[in-house]
Amino acid sequence: MSGRIVCFGELLLRLAAPGRELLLQSPALEVRIGGAEANVGVSLARFGHDVGMLGTVADNALGRAALGELRRHGVDTRAVRMAGGRMGLYFLATGAGHRPSEVLYDRAASAFASAPASGYDWDALLRGAAWLHLSGVTPALGAATAAAAADAVRAAVASGVRVSFDGNFRPKLWAAWDGDPATILRPLLEGAEIAFADHRDIDVVLGAEAGDPPDTHEQRFARAARRAFEAFPRLQRIACTTRVQSSVEHHALGALMATRGGGLHRVEPRELPAIVDRIGGGDAFAAGVLHGLVLGWDDADSLRFGHAAGCLKHAVPGDFNLCDADDVMALVRGERLDVKR
Amino acid sequence: MSGRIVCFGELLLRLAAPGRELLLQSPALEVRIGGAEANVGVSLARFGHDVGMLGTVADNALGRAALGELRRHGVDTRAVRMAGGRMGLYFLATGAGHRPSEVLYDRAASAFASAPASGYDWDALLRGAAWLHLSGVTPALGAATAAAAADAVRAAVASGVRVSFDGNFRPKLWAAWDGDPATILRPLLEGAEIAFADHRDIDVVLGAEAGDPPDTHEQRFARAARRAFEAFPRLQRIACTTRVQSSVEHHALGALMATRGGGLHRVEPRELPAIVDRIGGGDAFAAGVLHGLVLGWDDADSLRFGHAAGCLKHAVPGDFNLCDADDVMALVRGERLDVKR
Amino acid sequence: MSGRIVCFGELLLRLAAPGRELLLQSPALEVRIGGAEANVGVSLARFGHDVGMLGTVADNALGRAALGELRRHGVDTRAVRMAGGRMGLYFLATGAGHRPSEVLYDRAASAFASAPASGYDWDALLRGAAWLHLSGVTPALGAATAAAAADAVRAAVASGVRVSFDGNFRPKLWAAWDGDPATILRPLLEGAEIAFADHRDIDVVLGAEAGDPPDTHEQRFARAARRAFEAFPRLQRIACTTRVQSSVEHHALGALMATRGGGLHRVEPRELPAIVDRIGGGDAFAAGVLHGLVLGWDDADSLRFGHAAGCLKHAVPGDFNLCDADDVMALVRGERLDVKR
Amino acid sequence: MSGRIVCFGELLLRLAAPGRELLLQSPALEVRIGGAEANVGVSLARFGHDVGMLGTVADNALGRAALGELRRHGVDTRAVRMAGGRMGLYFLATGAGHRPSEVLYDRAASAFASAPASGYDWDALLRGAAWLHLSGVTPALGAATAAAAADAVRAAVASGVRVSFDGNFRPKLWAAWDGDPATILRPLLEGAEIAFADHRDIDVVLGAEAGDPPDTHEQRFARAARRAFEAFPRLQRIACTTRVQSSVEHHALGALMATRGGGLHRVEPRELPAIVDRIGGGDAFAAGVLHGLVLGWDDADSLRFGHAAGCLKHAVPGDFNLCDADDVMALVRGERLDVKR
Amino acid sequence: MSGRIVCFGELLLRLAAPGRELLLQSPALEVRIGGAEANVGVSLARFGHDVGMLGTVADNALGRAALGELRRHGVDTRAVRMAGGRMGLYFLATGAGHRPSEVLYDRAASAFASAPASGYDWDALLRGAAWLHLSGVTPALGAATAAAAADAVRAAVASGVRVSFDGNFRPKLWAAWDGDPATILRPLLEGAEIAFADHRDIDVVLGAEAGDPPDTHEQRFARAARRAFEAFPRLQRIACTTRVQSSVEHHALGALMATRGGGLHRVEPRELPAIVDRIGGGDAFAAGVLHGLVLGWDDADSLRFGHAAGCLKHAVPGDFNLCDADDVMALVRGERLDVKR
Amino acid sequence: MSGRIVCFGELLLRLAAPGRELLLQSPALEVRIGGAEANVGVSLARFGHDVGMLGTVADNALGRAALGELRRHGVDTRAVRMAGGRMGLYFLATGAGHRPSEVLYDRAASAFASAPASGYDWDALLRGAAWLHLSGVTPALGAATAAAAADAVRAAVASGVRVSFDGNFRPKLWAAWDGDPATILRPLLEGAEIAFADHRDIDVVLGAEAGDPPDTHEQRFARAARRAFEAFPRLQRIACTTRVQSSVEHHALGALMATRGGGLHRVEPRELPAIVDRIGGGDAFAAGVLHGLVLGWDDADSLRFGHAAGCLKHAVPGDFNLCDADDVMALVRGERLDVKR
Repeated sequence: MSGRIVCFGELLLRLAAPGRELLLQSPALEVRIGGAEANVGVSLARFGHDVGMLGTVADNALGRAALGELRRHGVDTRAVRMAGGRMGLYFLATGAGHRPSEVLYDRAASAFASAPASGYDWDALLRGAAWLHLSGVTPALGAATAAAAADAVRAAVASGVRVSFDGNFRPKLWAAWDGDPATILRPLLEGAEIAFADHRDIDVVLGAEAGDPPDTHEQRFARAARRAFEAFPRLQRIACTTRVQSSVEHHALGALMATRGGGLHRVEPRELPAIVDRIGGGDAFAAGVLHGLVLGWDDADSLRFGHAAGCLKHAVPGDFNLCDADDVMALVRGERLDVKR
Repeated sequence: MSGRIVCFGELLLRLAAPGRELLLQSPALEVRIGGAEANVGVSLARFGHDVGMLGTVADNALGRAALGELRRHGVDTRAVRMAGGRMGLYFLATGAGHRPSEVLYDRAASAFASAPASGYDWDALLRGAAWLHLSGVTPALGAATAAAAADAVRAAVASGVRVSFDGNFRPKLWAAWDGDPATILRPLLEGAEIAFADHRDIDVVLGAEAGDPPDTHEQRFARAARRAFEAFPRLQRIACTTRVQSSVEHHALGALMATRGGGLHRVEPRELPAIVDRIGGGDAFAAGVLHGLVLGWDDADSLRFGHAAGCLKHAVPGDFNLCDADDVMALVRGERLDVKR
Repeated sequence: MSGRIVCFGELLLRLAAPGRELLLQSPALEVRIGGAEANVGVSLARFGHDVGMLGTVADNALGRAALGELRRHGVDTRAVRMAGGRMGLYFLATGAGHRPSEVLYDRAASAFASAPASGYDWDALLRGAAWLHLSGVTPALGAATAAAAADAVRAAVASGVRVSFDGNFRPKLWAAWDGDPATILRPLLEGAEIAFADHRDIDVVLGAEAGDPPDTHEQRFARAARRAFEAFPRLQRIACTTRVQSSVEHHALGALMATRGGGLHRVEPRELPAIVDRIGGGDAFAAGVLHGLVLGWDDADSLRFGHAAGCLKHAVPGDFNLCDADDVMALVRGERLDVKR
Repeated sequence: MSGRIVCFGELLLRLAAPGRELLLQSPALEVRIGGAEANVGVSLARFGHDVGMLGTVADNALGRAALGELRRHGVDTRAVRMAGGRMGLYFLATGAGHRPSEVLYDRAASAFASAPASGYDWDALLRGAAWLHLSGVTPALGAATAAAAADAVRAAVASGVRVSFDGNFRPKLWAAWDGDPATILRPLLEGAEIAFADHRDIDVVLGAEAGDPPDTHEQRFARAARRAFEAFPRLQRIACTTRVQSSVEHHALGALMATRGGGLHRVEPRELPAIVDRIGGGDAFAAGVLHGLVLGWDDADSLRFGHAAGCLKHAVPGDFNLCDADDVMALVRGERLDVKR
Repeated sequence: MSGRIVCFGELLLRLAAPGRELLLQSPALEVRIGGAEANVGVSLARFGHDVGMLGTVADNALGRAALGELRRHGVDTRAVRMAGGRMGLYFLATGAGHRPSEVLYDRAASAFASAPASGYDWDALLRGAAWLHLSGVTPALGAATAAAAADAVRAAVASGVRVSFDGNFRPKLWAAWDGDPATILRPLLEGAEIAFADHRDIDVVLGAEAGDPPDTHEQRFARAARRAFEAFPRLQRIACTTRVQSSVEHHALGALMATRGGGLHRVEPRELPAIVDRIGGGDAFAAGVLHGLVLGWDDADSLRFGHAAGCLKHAVPGDFNLCDADDVMALVRGERLDVKR
Repeated sequence: MSGRIVCFGELLLRLAAPGRELLLQSPALEVRIGGAEANVGVSLARFGHDVGMLGTVADNALGRAALGELRRHGVDTRAVRMAGGRMGLYFLATGAGHRPSEVLYDRAASAFASAPASGYDWDALLRGAAWLHLSGVTPALGAATAAAAADAVRAAVASGVRVSFDGNFRPKLWAAWDGDPATILRPLLEGAEIAFADHRDIDVVLGAEAGDPPDTHEQRFARAARRAFEAFPRLQRIACTTRVQSSVEHHALGALMATRGGGLHRVEPRELPAIVDRIGGGDAFAAGVLHGLVLGWDDADSLRFGHAAGCLKHAVPGDFNLCDADDVMALVRGERLDVKR
């Protein structure tokens, strides 16, 4: 494969109620590991890439378990720092029918959020990397992680490491402190060659445009993309999924990609009729698109692959897309769905 | 909230095969607590009402566990009697596709069914209550519970406690002894201000009307309601759900309410495409309608709330609707279904 | 019931990942027993027939457990031989959405595959039997089982035991050794009165016909059936299911039966919208058709019963169809799907 | 092996809290099948004997599952009747340390207890049997089962079937109706060739002897045995275990056998330091002694085998002793305890 | 029972690895509720007392579940406040043999620790109470809880509510901020009538005495008790357990109580040979002693009851002692340990 | 740490019955990964060493899962080959009391056993390694692995990589083919600097000495060690554990080490009274001794550490000793066993 990919972000423990139960309806929790950037990293490692995780975890049994899980799936964790503090957690009750899934974040005062930006030696951490992937969750956690994200992007640009940025805008996280998302996110987008973002993410940084919005989601996306390409000269591609939900288990998932040259690629929505686990679907999409990009595929193929990867993720329990590239290609090619034996 | 609601009925242990297995296909049973009236009580307590349970449970570890489970969900159990005898049980194998769910009742000789009617001091039990809720299951269990139900309604009417009655007609239970349902159920309907019933429940008490039945379920319901309002002057409202099943997991659920003044409110059927647990759906509906009624909402709003509550119950494992009023209102308002975080 | 049915084939342990997980995603496996012919036998025993299993299992705790499981479901296992060697296994990861289920066979060097044909005393094993059922999986395992299958059919024909043969063509198994499927399968079809097979199974033995294939699956099936009736004079009926898959959980299942007299019976496809376990669906269909045949039903009724049995199997966890004949008849009659209580 | 053994008694479902939890501390129950006589039957079948179960179970999924479990372990269940009524249950919370295990019986109105004695055709049921095993639990359940037990013993004696009787005196069961144990149990002991009983069981039938009891348990047992041999001329052997409990998990188990000729065999107590499941220990002992007796071993060897079987049962989860004869002999011979591989 | 008991302290979720596994060795956690003061409250409620919980929990699904669990066991939770912030957690890996159990606290920034002391209206909270129980864990959490504990004791003394204080000295908690334990704990001991404490707890407040310590633990305890009675005139009794551990599962547990009059009561150590769950043993002891005290038993009986309760707790999974008073008395009386049926 | 350690051997999937159940008593298996050399490798990685695994696994989901589990615990798996064939399995039923644990090997025709010796490029595989660890299980599997083991040791000696050899003599494996253990094992011992072996392992290679054996196990060990030091000049140390079993859960474990200079180090037996998992105890001991050796500790300290590690392993579920060096040192130092919090 073509060059090491490093992912910078927080590792979280996900503690989920069994099946479709409410939280603590019965006295058990299923534990998985997740985190937007780690999800991308694991998926890329399963696709065969050389992937390294960057960040900080709590120096305790939980932090070690999180790292072990990444290693299990082929991600190099040697550069992750261990520090005092707690592991970020999230509690999950998977919904059903017309009862939405609920996530209860418990990530206050985590080792990652508390780690000082000065603790990361970016020259060392980026050595040998071809790509850096990070997301808007990290700067949203507070001043320390915002500074660390900015440092990372700056160092990447300086040393020729290409930057992939996933917007992942979470108003609740920003509301918890006095950071200004527009100011903080702008340099990240400025450094990125590819952004996973829709018109809302772009509006956060550039402000909403005056006038009536276009009629369709696709038009809104295309217009936002044009604005972004103008504002951020390094940016070459913007991609997002489109999602329509008729019930908690039944979505239709499509995908869009705009390119600097004005191209707009589209994957028509696919019905996902019996979703197992929706969380991490966007990260799986991002990993899939990056896979094509890193391998030098053309944009349409990369988008198709990313879209299929995102679809498959909805059929895999946990945050990680554990499908490999052959699984994804089988869906791209529309192979039959009967038992493989 | 507006006044205490007391629910009189039997508590049952539900012993269910795991997942979609047949009974004892594997050697494990999942235990939950249920019972038509307790289901209503728990749901109302989750909605914020002051709810008390009335009845009798076995004075053993199972009975104590059943009470503990009600308390856990906020229902006051101090007035439930403990007596000799066994706990009623039911075994459940949840079906799938075109294989129906099966319930195997094992409630013979239960402490509740055996408890003498004279053991309930209704003046004391109803003190402070605004509403009494009971159902047609209780009088169906035998002479003792039939007498107790009649006493309860009589005492409620005498002391100004409003009565809610759910028909829940179960021919198998009545067939097991020589009680005449028409005779026994009539005074309960006579005391009720609201009945959860469809045309079959009404026909049981009033006899089937001569002539051809109307064409549609709604017309049959409306005609039965008119007959009931004539026969039972205290009765103000009759409500029921409508249900069409295309597979075990996929129903369409609507709701109807007739009012003494001749009004007929309707909630159009909603598709329930991936049902988790259908049991208790009617009780959740009743609790939802009562919620509106107790709070003084208008009938259409109460019916809409009850219908949404009934729909949500199908997405909650166990007999109880564990959703709170905000969850129900979110569905009434049609809020989006994506992960809440 | 009308006469003992003996089933000859391999018993397998199925080791499945929990729920919709990938293999070893979490460190647990659910164990069930299966095998194409055993699946037919268990289903027929649940329908009330006198069924005996024939074959060889490993003389260890796993082999004994497999036999115990057959006995549990009413199959007589006294004639199964115990021998050295290992039990055949298969690992299963049930898919979801657009991620297909995967079966990982681990049946090399099994006690069944290694058992010499000379070890079976067919006169004794078939004594008292009215029917022998076997499938194309057994001869595919190697020279020893190919010889044993041929011996079994020869002895059955000689002693007036009627033969039921399920094609079950598995190219991977045949590819693992130098057996020629056409040569080896021919005598099995020659002995059979009924074959569960579609045009692909027939083509394997008779070779593909020259010229363009007919347009529809049904036409292809009808033409293949005509060729088979010409080639195999004992053969009276050929039956198969038809399957269209829109996702891993949603298939449409129909059925076809051709008879020597030129008849073609068809059961229109039924939607199976929330499949629990697709494995063993074809075996359940075969058992259902055989049930009718053994009882002397007419062909259309037998096919309808087989089709309904096959549909129900998709709602039962494990390889076995554990529904009884009443359950199947309820689906044939289209009884309502609400909770049976 | 030497002759068929039939066991007459009730099958029970055991519903146990997981691990060392209290009942319903968490919402799950582990299901196993038991019953004093079935326990003996399964153990004998595992030792290689031809064993048949006699009795009545509920004609529902639970009754069928109980029979299936016996078949799984090699017991012939074809002669068990299916009837209306419920299955007897017992709930179990396994204790620990100084907290005793608790059994909550829920066997009122069971199909077995309700089955009329006239429904058993003992001539047919005993045909081909060499031994009949039954216990004092059966007559304790009520007049119907008391009559059935008496009929069974009478028919066995008449037709030369040897009778094995296990005292299993349970005061609580007798207290629930007006049966006189001395009167009812006497004919059972009169018919028996071997009784599993200690001095308390004998005293129930013969009355307590006047004067001070002997000093030791062994002396009391020997004196009671002498009285029994005088009173019951058919009786040849009486055997019992001795048990000293220092905690719920740590017992010392010995065994005694008195013979008509005046012999007294003793197996010194063995420490059982980490008991997994104490229930069924006495039944495993009885099966072990019967195994030797049926095979014509001398009394001391039979007792040693029975004692070792009883000890091993404490290491097997569930009511059944699932060890085979080689396992028992390994303990008799004192083979080493390290992992067998 | 004699008067309401209120317990003030933090509720925690305990997330434990299954069986004897290390944390996250497999991806599951068992959830229970605990907290030193809640443990005492639940045990007293199970003994039949009127018990109320005081404190603050997070206003989310986890906090509500914790309250539900207390209600399930009979504790009144209406006075517990709901507030923003997170629930305190602790992760537990139960040890074995010579591998100690490990607790990983994750209680930083909990709703309880963050709740301002001014938020508690002690006059209202103590109304109707006869006893207030609290422990040294609460003031150790920070300035806010230290102030709240002081306020609680002051209000209790002022209004004639008797105070029970459990030392529970945890150096790690105190080390996390600049609170001086001697200064902060002194007023709590000054208000207490009974203290559960050993010489280490006393030394924390009064300082270590000069000179060599006495030879035995009992002498050290007695001397510390004398110093405490001198320093704290309200204090009437000091009690503690003694514990010797030969392995993680095998302890010997004794108990001591010193009284103001100079009495020293002792319960000789009892072997606990197969400990199920050691956590909460001290709280169960305290609840047992309080039970006797509240009922007006003499000190020796109270101590014996407390000791037996503490022993039994080691046989109950979870933090709570779920045994009732009869269970405890059975151990005090030395009743036999065989299965209760 | 001091130099990379590579471990050459087979990875196995362990499929274990839950708790103390017999195999397939209930339909579930717990999966863990093991293998004598992998066990050593994982333990050393947990102690902080740089460890690499060498060998061959099946190129399927099971092989990948086994590698993932090693990585999770910090072992580098990049040099393990993937090949056709199956994964070796073993089924485990953990015993109890006087019922021994049983292992059912199912490793015939595994990818490891089938891998040709020529497929390993030992110069590359040993590059950078300071130590090579292997065991007598590998050559026992057949000619291919015997040749591979010989090649490995030859290459190690040639390139200055120190060799650690664990005897692990398994007569059953050798009996399955015509390899002569003495001939095959001799060159492995010739290359080793340390051997984990007792007198039986030595006798296999050197033949039993004439004359009566010494009285004690220790004397036998010492004499065998002297013979080995004479025969194998590279050998510096021989170490073994001593084990006395009073029940399946209660052993006493000691340790011995003989050194070329004539020294004999002994660790007195420690009681292990509640063993969780005995499998891998010897491997944990070997890893502990190697830890000291690699760090240059003196022999007595290394043996003490190895012994403590072996003891701790008995308290850890699974084959791997997951304790870290601090845990082991705490036991060496005799730290207290109470809950660490």
